[in-house]
Amino acid sequence: MDLREQALKMHAEHHGKLETVSKVPITNAHELSLAYTPGVAEPCKEIARDRELVYRYTAKCSTVAIVTDGTAVLGLGDIGPEAALPVMEGKACLFKTFGDVDAVPICLNTKDPDEIVRAVELMAPGFGGINLEDISAPRCFEIEEKLKEKLDIPVFHDDQHGTAVVVLAALINAAKCVGKELADIRTVISGAGAAGISICTLLRKAGVKDILLCDRSGILYPGRPGQNSAKEAIAQATNPGMRKGTLADALAGSDLLIGVSGPGIVTGDMVRAMGPKPMIFALSNPTPEIMPQEALDAGAYIVATGRSDFPNQINTLLVFPGIFKGALACRARQITEDMMIAAAYAIAGCVPAGQMDPEHIIPSVFDRTIASVVAQAVERYAR
Amino acid sequence: MDLREQALKMHAEHHGKLETVSKVPITNAHELSLAYTPGVAEPCKEIARDRELVYRYTAKCSTVAIVTDGTAVLGLGDIGPEAALPVMEGKACLFKTFGDVDAVPICLNTKDPDEIVRAVELMAPGFGGINLEDISAPRCFEIEEKLKEKLDIPVFHDDQHGTAVVVLAALINAAKCVGKELADIRTVISGAGAAGISICTLLRKAGVKDILLCDRSGILYPGRPGQNSAKEAIAQATNPGMRKGTLADALAGSDLLIGVSGPGIVTGDMVRAMGPKPMIFALSNPTPEIMPQEALDAGAYIVATGRSDFPNQINTLLVFPGIFKGALACRARQITEDMMIAAAYAIAGCVPAGQMDPEHIIPSVFDRTIASVVAQAVERYAR
Repeated sequence: MDLREQALKMHAEHHGKLETVSKVPITNAHELSLAYTPGVAEPCKEIARDRELVYRYTAKCSTVAIVTDGTAVLGLGDIGPEAALPVMEGKACLFKTFGDVDAVPICLNTKDPDEIVRAVELMAPGFGGINLEDISAPRCFEIEEKLKEKLDIPVFHDDQHGTAVVVLAALINAAKCVGKELADIRTVISGAGAAGISICTLLRKAGVKDILLCDRSGILYPGRPGQNSAKEAIAQATNPGMRKGTLADALAGSDLLIGVSGPGIVTGDMVRAMGPKPMIFALSNPTPEIMPQEALDAGAYIVATGRSDFPNQINTLLVFPGIFKGALACRARQITEDMMIAAAYAIAGCVPAGQMDPEHIIPSVFDRTIASVVAQAVERYAR
Repeated sequence: MDLREQALKMHAEHHGKLETVSKVPITNAHELSLAYTPGVAEPCKEIARDRELVYRYTAKCSTVAIVTDGTAVLGLGDIGPEAALPVMEGKACLFKTFGDVDAVPICLNTKDPDEIVRAVELMAPGFGGINLEDISAPRCFEIEEKLKEKLDIPVFHDDQHGTAVVVLAALINAAKCVGKELADIRTVISGAGAAGISICTLLRKAGVKDILLCDRSGILYPGRPGQNSAKEAIAQATNPGMRKGTLADALAGSDLLIGVSGPGIVTGDMVRAMGPKPMIFALSNPTPEIMPQEALDAGAYIVATGRSDFPNQINTLLVFPGIFKGALACRARQITEDMMIAAAYAIAGCVPAGQMDPEHIIPSVFDRTIASVVAQAVERYAR
């Protein structure tokens, strides 16, 4: 049975992957009188008196809504809210398994940003945080910004910020391996969607100074015809010198490629034209921008991908369970860039100095200590 | 420690009562590749191809949203969406514990019926059914009607229909005990809110012919000044003869009182003025319309309440887990009155003829077979 058949069989057998269960036994009249009427009226009355007590007496303190409209699901694109549900359930399983965070899939049947914002705003009382998922750019930026303004609970778009945090974590260790400072690393990001722009923003905040973004039309520069407002803004911030050209032009002499674009668009020749000890983070999934062996053959010193079957898997699973676990624990109202940088350093620190080498720049996603370490770092920073 | 202290301690200790857990293990790369990328793409693609397959590959088939705006919570009234959450979590625990239905609290921060309808409509792709809860009348009627029109999944307002089903179940057996036919039972309902009107409607559908509804102003009659449209409609249907008067007037000579109003409003004298072998369902909670001993002393033949510490507990816990379990299993698009009547007869049938007596007209809420029996009856009827 191949992976496709196994995956379909597993999903059909269990009728999905998620269930909602009681933490308390209800087997007799006394237990019923505590969990439901009449006893349940007591926490209700307390919360009606002081709304903050909802964090003490309910699961709001540990529960996140995973909100999608199904417009940018995996590499499948706009497949709609029903077809997005298996991914959202999977994400919820990961939240619980790795972070002990209770997560509820919310698949919305609209693509209108204002309707999405309003629906999330209306359901916010029952949730301690909002994880936006697989919403297409540039709509995802607007939705996230508006929700951050309106809500007093953290809002986090994992495709953007989770990716940015785990890339930064990998870069922190990769830079040590190649003996370079973040400030000196000439970086090229291939892909100027939600992930590419967010990675760029966080890396700049973390001290990386020279970053060029490229999309299918080549290097982003201020005033480039036809680019959306998000691309224009990041072009103005990163490329005031108006450098122009192709991805190959951008890569020539650079130190780091971060690919969040598409399969096979980076060649061995492009890697050969990079500076000394090139770092290649080829994150397109399942097929990277360049296959690891080809990159190594072309002189890459460090290669990372999004895949579990090569060394250095860069996966947001290292990020979102711990970030939310920490943000919920300290009841942070926002997940700030500083908290994200703290999370990245915490993840990077999970690879002990003695075990770090070009094939071990990032911990395993199955290291069950990561979420707690990340959560503690986030909490420490938030407090 | 009294019940209040115990309830607060229990809720604080567990941080609420509900958690969302994975049904599949995710401990290694292979398991991750099935539950999440890349394997999860396969059910996504299948559902994108045929949306009905969302019932095969996800938990939609077993998952219900418990939707409230917090406007009519228990006897506490309009306490808001946060303060309603302990009740919704409790309800979700009951759904899972008794019906193996996964239920998710959705507490909405609006009282506008159109906004509630739209929010529920938007989130419907991820749910197999909608349980409306603790929404004040008459708004609850409008919200339920509109959602039924718009959605292709069952919508059920437990405060209305769950109550109506369990009252009918109790009445089916009570009528046997007193040797009367449903068609001959002169019925008075005290309370003309959501529950009272829904009970009246279902009892009429089930064959009860003579029903008077009363509220604080006495008997409802057509054209009564100041009554809302729901009351006017039910008055026209039940009281074309324009009978007027107080609750005491209505009860004189009647066979059955169903109280869904308030504590202590029925007196022993009112019971003494009823017909032979009076049946009293005094469901106001926690304090009934008349205490059981007082009703018995005044000649009541059968007394039922909503409480667990007296005989004959009339509680919707006998209804909603099984109704949804059955409706989800056969993927019913609506829960019709016929399905509700089938559920009521199924519940009534769970009291064996040999064990039925005036103190045993309804099964125990802790009888774990009820939900399956109800589900089977609902499925049989739906198919």
